[in-house]
Amino acid sequence: MPAPLPIAFLAGTAGPWRIDRIEAPRGPTLPSAERLAVQEGDRAATLAAWCLRGVTSNLRYTTGPEQRSLAAVQPGLGRPEATRAALIPIRKTASWWELPQDTRRTVLGETSRHVAIGLEYLPAIARQLIHCRDLHEPFDFLTWFEFAPADAPRFDALLVRLRATEEWTHDEREVEIRRSRDA
Amino acid sequence: MPAPLPIAFLAGTAGPWRIDRIEAPRGPTLPSAERLAVQEGDRAATLAAWCLRGVTSNLRYTTGPEQRSLAAVQPGLGRPEATRAALIPIRKTASWWELPQDTRRTVLGETSRHVAIGLEYLPAIARQLIHCRDLHEPFDFLTWFEFAPADAPRFDALLVRLRATEEWTHDEREVEIRRSRDA
Repeated sequence: MPAPLPIAFLAGTAGPWRIDRIEAPRGPTLPSAERLAVQEGDRAATLAAWCLRGVTSNLRYTTGPEQRSLAAVQPGLGRPEATRAALIPIRKTASWWELPQDTRRTVLGETSRHVAIGLEYLPAIARQLIHCRDLHEPFDFLTWFEFAPADAPRFDALLVRLRATEEWTHDEREVEIRRSRDA
Repeated sequence: MPAPLPIAFLAGTAGPWRIDRIEAPRGPTLPSAERLAVQEGDRAATLAAWCLRGVTSNLRYTTGPEQRSLAAVQPGLGRPEATRAALIPIRKTASWWELPQDTRRTVLGETSRHVAIGLEYLPAIARQLIHCRDLHEPFDFLTWFEFAPADAPRFDALLVRLRATEEWTHDEREVEIRRSRDA
């Protein structure tokens, strides 16, 4: 299915992923739930504790050289050994979105080195960025990460580094949903 | 209402705008209709010949200096004398969206001078850009223009210039819906 591909994360009692914990580094958290299901495409929503929707879409900051560096090392989702995962919905401040494109790019790329930091953790961590700002959803992005249990400490370290950047000061709400599944 | 503000264009038998003509410079056209209504916010859709939806959202190419130049001269929508208008839905090619951000910016800004050309026609022409690529709509953007009858030839000239740029070669579908209302 070509992009934009709709994706919904459904928290409830069904789904392949067990929800291990939900924390909110910024703003209100989300209700707890046992399991997480991921649905692709335009399907009817099932009964859920909560449901976050978004679409895969074009990248909005990544340059050609960055895109090529990422493509050379980034793994796909669904690796058998990647039994740990995190879903991190993020909402930026209203003032962030009023900044012009070149200023947002400078904060993200040059000041906060978002792409460069992320690259250091590839290919251990598989990632997908899902956009939802234009969908009238409570978050702007749904970020989704998958990794092997042995790489969980590296993922924690990545989050600490990203949360120490200037870019992170423009986040208004962030919820961390940690998940696992059996190998 | 803060951005993203949902906006729907409903073509049918009701609405303040008379549809003067519908043409498709590229790709399939849209069904004809008599009147056009514009709805803001999350309202139930009324019965319509067709309905195009989108949201006002953050700008994705405009630099700080460009944003300030535009803000200094661009008029608001709804001026009493602006009784002529055009709704031009545009869909870009799939390969356009696969280009990295810096390449798309170069084509739009530096090669095609999209913002610079547009600036020459301000403040005569009021504009609004509505995004719909992430909404699973048939178009990527809904571009909306309002001007006085005396400025209609200038608007036509603007379209001719924009359609002569490299950026336009990345359009896959474009429909031009010309509208008017009584003063």
